[in-house]
Amino acid sequence: MSDTIICYCTGAGHTRRLAEHIARGASSAALLDVETIADEDWARLHAARAILFGAPTYMGSAAGAFKTFMDATSDFWLDQLWQNKIAGGFTTGSANAGDKSLTLMSFATLAAQHGMIWVGQAEIGPPANTSNGEINRDGFWLGLAATASRDKSELIMPADAETARRYGVRIAEAVARWGKGTAN
Amino acid sequence: MSDTIICYCTGAGHTRRLAEHIARGASSAALLDVETIADEDWARLHAARAILFGAPTYMGSAAGAFKTFMDATSDFWLDQLWQNKIAGGFTTGSANAGDKSLTLMSFATLAAQHGMIWVGQAEIGPPANTSNGEINRDGFWLGLAATASRDKSELIMPADAETARRYGVRIAEAVARWGKGTAN
Amino acid sequence: MSDTIICYCTGAGHTRRLAEHIARGASSAALLDVETIADEDWARLHAARAILFGAPTYMGSAAGAFKTFMDATSDFWLDQLWQNKIAGGFTTGSANAGDKSLTLMSFATLAAQHGMIWVGQAEIGPPANTSNGEINRDGFWLGLAATASRDKSELIMPADAETARRYGVRIAEAVARWGKGTAN
Amino acid sequence: MSDTIICYCTGAGHTRRLAEHIARGASSAALLDVETIADEDWARLHAARAILFGAPTYMGSAAGAFKTFMDATSDFWLDQLWQNKIAGGFTTGSANAGDKSLTLMSFATLAAQHGMIWVGQAEIGPPANTSNGEINRDGFWLGLAATASRDKSELIMPADAETARRYGVRIAEAVARWGKGTAN
Repeated sequence: MSDTIICYCTGAGHTRRLAEHIARGASSAALLDVETIADEDWARLHAARAILFGAPTYMGSAAGAFKTFMDATSDFWLDQLWQNKIAGGFTTGSANAGDKSLTLMSFATLAAQHGMIWVGQAEIGPPANTSNGEINRDGFWLGLAATASRDKSELIMPADAETARRYGVRIAEAVARWGKGTAN
Repeated sequence: MSDTIICYCTGAGHTRRLAEHIARGASSAALLDVETIADEDWARLHAARAILFGAPTYMGSAAGAFKTFMDATSDFWLDQLWQNKIAGGFTTGSANAGDKSLTLMSFATLAAQHGMIWVGQAEIGPPANTSNGEINRDGFWLGLAATASRDKSELIMPADAETARRYGVRIAEAVARWGKGTAN
Repeated sequence: MSDTIICYCTGAGHTRRLAEHIARGASSAALLDVETIADEDWARLHAARAILFGAPTYMGSAAGAFKTFMDATSDFWLDQLWQNKIAGGFTTGSANAGDKSLTLMSFATLAAQHGMIWVGQAEIGPPANTSNGEINRDGFWLGLAATASRDKSELIMPADAETARRYGVRIAEAVARWGKGTAN
Repeated sequence: MSDTIICYCTGAGHTRRLAEHIARGASSAALLDVETIADEDWARLHAARAILFGAPTYMGSAAGAFKTFMDATSDFWLDQLWQNKIAGGFTTGSANAGDKSLTLMSFATLAAQHGMIWVGQAEIGPPANTSNGEINRDGFWLGLAATASRDKSELIMPADAETARRYGVRIAEAVARWGKGTAN
């Protein structure tokens, strides 16, 4: 069973690829395409220790298919089934900035409504940290954001892919630390 | 033909009712339920002088059905068919604040991506303006936001209904002024 | 020494009072007025396990005096001295909604830039949870927000005061759990 | 007398330079450094037909010095002295995205509280519009955002400078159109 479920929807495949790069860094992570979510998937989500939210940014906020999934979580909001789980978020877009911040804010707000603990990006980007190459190159901190690569096979550029992997590592570390805190 | 199209989706009817109250104030306004949008509706939108965006706030941002409509506008984004139209927005929710601000921000951002001119709320709310009764009682300015009434027949409380009507008046005035500016 | 430092600025006293109510709930919390911050205060902040950010919302975002403090934290941003500390935020305003959400978003973003772990509100508000009285009555989740009381002696209304105390408890629990996670 | 006042504060000079590029495009625009604002400047602002807001983004939102200016506008908020003026905003930062969106949102919210009419960016950026060179290259639409150039003499890169100039043109066109709408 996976500790961390990476919920996503994808258009041309960029967001799914970004999710896969996060999964490379997170130990024990599974991907869940919210457009084909089934009853047993909800049970998996309720049992998970961390849930990540990921969607393309379309017209300035999260894609409709993902928003529909977000809305569906209102069913168990009153029961606060996700309270105190670790949360994080990621998005893709065709521009470097591209109002992707608003998508991340809507994810952080969703997480807060569920009483989740939000873990953002911890890689300071260029130009500040030039020794760090192009990690977090556009400077997003509330979560992870990538610019869609025009290379149809890579989809996500190497620097963004490595930024994603590190975000996965960070989520896994937070899950371990937060989880150990409850062990007797 | 209507100058102003009030695009909305609705759950239990509150947002539709709020749209109707705006329409009472706006001259020559028509309502459009985006969940049943047809090809000729898109043509009406492209011909309109003002477009308002309205949706319930679910889990901290605009309802999925409305987001799906927002996404569909990307089809003509490159052509900037909505550039320089007047825009505004409104939302409903079950709590006074309830992260409805984020919904309004996503509408203002959508409007900006289309090069539209954003017209927000102009009623200063209580407690500042006590002579104004309960108009804009919760204090939203980027657009219009109402708290769902528990009275199943009114749906929108009288103070919010009047705030909506005044927002309609404001939109109509902006449409007239902005439109006259192009007349030779 | 205090685990948790509650950073705030205050205008007419409402935000300071709200900070005091949080401190009642948080074990081992100290208040810090950022308008009189001294060198040794920065050292205390760097040593703390949790830092809360609190300011009045003026004209739609955090008060200038607090923003000046936020800017000053850029001095040690590259060193990420606050990475993995627990963070939270609170604000006051004269209206129920009053764009206070934007203030909380700017605090969550600041925290993310420092690599902090964000802990929001966990009290679901009315009308959903009617058994819970007026706790979180306006429905803010990203953090804590109160409406300034016109009663000059109480400053913060009882329901908001209790919401604040509970937020303090939640922060303390997160600090304990997150801290225990690092113990060997 | 100037129709349009471009209010700004600046750190290392980038934001002032960006303001100058906007002024090249806007007819009849004057710059106003809000850190040295005097009584007669407030009178000029009250008489202007358009006001632009510009500040560096520091730690995820507008610089403290500019926020202090924003707060000072609360003095005449009740009188709505700025109602129906044209408004716009711009910011600079060291990263392409860098949470500059939040700064623009705080400006749009300030404008809305004053009942102003918000005019955003109308240049669609790459990669969509490749014929347009690097105009609006990072994809910001709510307003204008530039990445600080490391070239100490140019401060703002040529593509961003031209994007700024075009934003100035757009503001001037909106001022003219909106103004003509009131002429009898």
